[in-house]
Amino acid sequence: MKIKAAVLEKPHVLGIKEVDMPRPGAGEVLVKVKAVGICGSDVHYYVDGRIGDYIVEKPIILGHETSGEIAEVGAGVTHLKKGDRVALEPGIPCGSCQQCKGGTYNLCAEVRFHATPPYDGTFAEYVVHPAQFAFKLPEHISFAEGAMIEPLSVGIHATRQGGVGLGSRVLITGAGPIGLVTLLACKAAGAGVIAVVEGKQNRADMAYKLGATQVISTFDSDKIVAETKRLSDNYGFDTAIECSGAGPAAQTAVRALKRGGTLVFVGLFSALEVPMDLNAITQKELTFKGVFRYKNTYPTAIDLLASGRIDVKPLITVRFPWDKVKDAMDCAHKDAANQIKVMTEW
Amino acid sequence: MKIKAAVLEKPHVLGIKEVDMPRPGAGEVLVKVKAVGICGSDVHYYVDGRIGDYIVEKPIILGHETSGEIAEVGAGVTHLKKGDRVALEPGIPCGSCQQCKGGTYNLCAEVRFHATPPYDGTFAEYVVHPAQFAFKLPEHISFAEGAMIEPLSVGIHATRQGGVGLGSRVLITGAGPIGLVTLLACKAAGAGVIAVVEGKQNRADMAYKLGATQVISTFDSDKIVAETKRLSDNYGFDTAIECSGAGPAAQTAVRALKRGGTLVFVGLFSALEVPMDLNAITQKELTFKGVFRYKNTYPTAIDLLASGRIDVKPLITVRFPWDKVKDAMDCAHKDAANQIKVMTEW
Amino acid sequence: MKIKAAVLEKPHVLGIKEVDMPRPGAGEVLVKVKAVGICGSDVHYYVDGRIGDYIVEKPIILGHETSGEIAEVGAGVTHLKKGDRVALEPGIPCGSCQQCKGGTYNLCAEVRFHATPPYDGTFAEYVVHPAQFAFKLPEHISFAEGAMIEPLSVGIHATRQGGVGLGSRVLITGAGPIGLVTLLACKAAGAGVIAVVEGKQNRADMAYKLGATQVISTFDSDKIVAETKRLSDNYGFDTAIECSGAGPAAQTAVRALKRGGTLVFVGLFSALEVPMDLNAITQKELTFKGVFRYKNTYPTAIDLLASGRIDVKPLITVRFPWDKVKDAMDCAHKDAANQIKVMTEW
Amino acid sequence: MKIKAAVLEKPHVLGIKEVDMPRPGAGEVLVKVKAVGICGSDVHYYVDGRIGDYIVEKPIILGHETSGEIAEVGAGVTHLKKGDRVALEPGIPCGSCQQCKGGTYNLCAEVRFHATPPYDGTFAEYVVHPAQFAFKLPEHISFAEGAMIEPLSVGIHATRQGGVGLGSRVLITGAGPIGLVTLLACKAAGAGVIAVVEGKQNRADMAYKLGATQVISTFDSDKIVAETKRLSDNYGFDTAIECSGAGPAAQTAVRALKRGGTLVFVGLFSALEVPMDLNAITQKELTFKGVFRYKNTYPTAIDLLASGRIDVKPLITVRFPWDKVKDAMDCAHKDAANQIKVMTEW
Repeated sequence: MKIKAAVLEKPHVLGIKEVDMPRPGAGEVLVKVKAVGICGSDVHYYVDGRIGDYIVEKPIILGHETSGEIAEVGAGVTHLKKGDRVALEPGIPCGSCQQCKGGTYNLCAEVRFHATPPYDGTFAEYVVHPAQFAFKLPEHISFAEGAMIEPLSVGIHATRQGGVGLGSRVLITGAGPIGLVTLLACKAAGAGVIAVVEGKQNRADMAYKLGATQVISTFDSDKIVAETKRLSDNYGFDTAIECSGAGPAAQTAVRALKRGGTLVFVGLFSALEVPMDLNAITQKELTFKGVFRYKNTYPTAIDLLASGRIDVKPLITVRFPWDKVKDAMDCAHKDAANQIKVMTEW
Repeated sequence: MKIKAAVLEKPHVLGIKEVDMPRPGAGEVLVKVKAVGICGSDVHYYVDGRIGDYIVEKPIILGHETSGEIAEVGAGVTHLKKGDRVALEPGIPCGSCQQCKGGTYNLCAEVRFHATPPYDGTFAEYVVHPAQFAFKLPEHISFAEGAMIEPLSVGIHATRQGGVGLGSRVLITGAGPIGLVTLLACKAAGAGVIAVVEGKQNRADMAYKLGATQVISTFDSDKIVAETKRLSDNYGFDTAIECSGAGPAAQTAVRALKRGGTLVFVGLFSALEVPMDLNAITQKELTFKGVFRYKNTYPTAIDLLASGRIDVKPLITVRFPWDKVKDAMDCAHKDAANQIKVMTEW
Repeated sequence: MKIKAAVLEKPHVLGIKEVDMPRPGAGEVLVKVKAVGICGSDVHYYVDGRIGDYIVEKPIILGHETSGEIAEVGAGVTHLKKGDRVALEPGIPCGSCQQCKGGTYNLCAEVRFHATPPYDGTFAEYVVHPAQFAFKLPEHISFAEGAMIEPLSVGIHATRQGGVGLGSRVLITGAGPIGLVTLLACKAAGAGVIAVVEGKQNRADMAYKLGATQVISTFDSDKIVAETKRLSDNYGFDTAIECSGAGPAAQTAVRALKRGGTLVFVGLFSALEVPMDLNAITQKELTFKGVFRYKNTYPTAIDLLASGRIDVKPLITVRFPWDKVKDAMDCAHKDAANQIKVMTEW
Repeated sequence: MKIKAAVLEKPHVLGIKEVDMPRPGAGEVLVKVKAVGICGSDVHYYVDGRIGDYIVEKPIILGHETSGEIAEVGAGVTHLKKGDRVALEPGIPCGSCQQCKGGTYNLCAEVRFHATPPYDGTFAEYVVHPAQFAFKLPEHISFAEGAMIEPLSVGIHATRQGGVGLGSRVLITGAGPIGLVTLLACKAAGAGVIAVVEGKQNRADMAYKLGATQVISTFDSDKIVAETKRLSDNYGFDTAIECSGAGPAAQTAVRALKRGGTLVFVGLFSALEVPMDLNAITQKELTFKGVFRYKNTYPTAIDLLASGRIDVKPLITVRFPWDKVKDAMDCAHKDAANQIKVMTEW
């Protein structure tokens, strides 16, 4: 039996093809895909055919922000049944290495992650997935919201890595999709002050709409530092979360932090090396923390969406039918001035 | 120069007296008191003349939930000036013991705490206080809200001790004033499920109003456990916060927790000893944590009130002029069925 | 093909029987067993046929403190090869529940644990085990030492749960095998003061030999508390680790702790409920932590044995050939006055 | 009344002068100085007259690694008496800022630190010090050892910041005095593998003597990384502690760490900015932590010295009478090939 899938042959060559229908094995579920969001990484593969060392060397199915409906359950699956609506966590760790046993399965060296070469993603009519990484959605959460749990997970993990909690004073540099979901998570976690640095007008507007207590549109480091001091009784911020991938943003964040503050790195830098004032780490006793994808965030995200504490719907600025994936990719690639999240639906 | 103060001579004997006007020393501020909330401990001293080993042996001024206006600053005080509106953190630690240097000044054995014998509290026209424990209130926070920061601080500290954060599933046993501020803090911290056990109707209603996702009115331990399992994908709750001081509530909480869960003790038990299933601590690898007052909560609370993320106003159910303190005490003592927080104002 | 195994038919009826030779599947190893230590739980099943809710309802092979030699590796096993000497971690978690993914695989509800009904243990010539829970031993660590990694793991986990580190002041109540491995782990972790409460002479002597800074032989709670105060600049201890399963020990530990101290529960109590002063948790802001088996301790233990930082050999006070398991059990059961660890060897 | 002190007038001009005898105020002690170690920072001020923004603008008394004997106690001091032998923690924080109340008094912006301009140090016959920062030494710890508690404190704090504990695999880059005390602290904390990168022969020898499991003398980054992989089952190290102040060491440490590992910065870099691969922080989810001096380490160090778990005596390679401070400074400055710690004694 054959199903349709959107296959990327090489940069910009993306079309609907027939592929084999997958079958669920023991502990797996077959999912009829219903919504897939487009991530910056999808666009990178679509446009450049690579991200760093990850290279598209053979045709690949993109897409990893996924929700759908259970079509069939494999042997031994008890917590899901046909018809259940689910969100799919796209990384499948080995389960037996030091990292997996140590509670950091997101750092598993053997992880298979949707739409990261050589593994296929979910722009297809059906996909098979381990049941333990399929999470049931309540009826009142839409499939599009379910697909948003993937990027939201990055924001939740960044918030946790940054120790953001009640009354935290937080600086977020960059308000693209990831900066914005981080803002949502920080707000939900009780941050008292959330200042966002962002120059693009549509993103700055969205940041205010989603709960930023202040949006700083300048990129002048001195002015940003002065502003953050003013907002923090002159101590500096508890936590900065770098979502822009710009070296000067990281350097500014170091200055804007209080002694003992934490700088969380989420954005990837195009520069292989960025000059950093390492003595500031010592003299201010700073903590730097990385964010690599996420772990144990799906149940959290579902509870937060279900209780209304986080609303991701405003982030979805345009929708395409899934068989127009190429148009959706082009939109995500070329219309950043107007779009936050491009969603595709089945 | 003389000022007026409400002095408790012995149980139920509480009247307005003239006392000496205090003068601020170096590092201190003189505060014109504007609002003082009545705490259960005040009522205990008023009614019984003691709480455990703390005994009213000479006349005492009660009151420790305090806000006011700076009337004068002592030498060396730079961050406050005459006319500033402030909330007062009522415990003054020694600053030099192992606990103070270790970041747990609330556990300082030498702490002087308002209205805990032999130290006077704030039911007076003026009080002197260390400037470092007087926190400036923004204009749009009322004095009554400022006084509420003290009980809210207990809720914030309980939330922190319980590790409550994004998506936490929390059980709160008891919805008196402390249970309710804990609920407010848990909600602000992003808890995904907050179930409250409370039998009194006015408190249960208030819990729903403030954001409980569920209020359980039964005291049947089996039913509570079954309900919490249902609300937590059958795992049990991440955190339980015991605010009732009832042994069966603590025992039920142990059962309602997931493996690896945390039980936070806030309420004081009238029984000297409570029978506990200690093997559950081992077999479920539970964590128990105590909450003794709070630390470093005032700036947090002010940020949360200022940004609107927490609203304490619904908790203030009745107000008295401060020179009617005795009436206010009687109200707090006798009208628990209708009142949550009794506030006095100058 | 048949192998020999020691099968417990019912209490006290334990004999060598022939059983089927097991075969390793994918990801598994076949291990020729070389040494198995006898644990208190083995003795309980041997004598009473049960431990709490775990009941020997059909013949069972006991033994879970195991080392051996790789006889064959299953498909996909790359980090071990025939002839490697290994220690076996006896609990096999499901790998996919909330606990497993959250870094607490020891709390997995679906764990299969050697010699815990209905699962067989390792008193046999050969056993099959998942390769990820077989850890390679350096040449200079003997098989008997390798078998000791299992009980040592409890001590390591207790030390971690108690936050014991450089300069910690620790009280250990009870110096049976588990109390003693906890002592070894606390010493290796840099505890500055380690006081042990133990009345039996052979255990007290061993505690001194292994590095206790003080052994307290009285069970008078007041005297123990006075002594611990004296040893801690009058503050009380940072951490107490309860290894005796005696209610009065737990109650005394609460009193001996400093404000903010941590009480770790390792021993199981015969009483279903123990009366506890819960207000002490609140007023001293204590932390209680449970220890259920261990997690991620085998590589740690191997590094510590290999570098000589921990020496478990003194704990092995008597050795039996493995086919004299019944004699070994009787010795462990009846000769507690002279024995710490009874070891069997192939 | 006059006493003698060693006063630095300007670089290289250091002589014994008469200064006023200090008097202890309330909460203070007068200490007859008995031993002071020479730190690299003393040498910097002696040779260059400055360290970064800290400039010797008027005559200063150097020295901050200090022990002595109580000569007199000020009002209210109860835990010390005349004749007590003490080690002095040299930084005196304000006690009332956000950092002090938050448990990070080492980050207090108002700290007064011995021998950091404009504050005098302890190369004098007598000094006055707050009693809360004078720690009683047991009789069997010498004054020279007592003076070593100051640098040892940096090692203890680095070990804590790095989360080094039972079985940790640690890389230390640089084995100068601070690298070596860090090694001592890591060993005492139970690190299973401690590899030290150091090229100078006397320091490499000392590292082996003090417990390094391996000393790597090459500075070839690829070789260091290969070696650390070999020592860590190919995962990489848990923690790296950078004590050299060399950019390439920091860059190599990033590569040598496992995913999820921690890099602790202790050494100060001469370069204002060091090029760093920030994407490694994200992709390996690394943690960076700074070490600025230390906090709450003196009681820990005293327990560890008293119990013999750490021995600092081998580090003291040469001693001078205190009035030969200039010779001692010249020795520390010029004889790095032979000396680790230069100690002066009264």
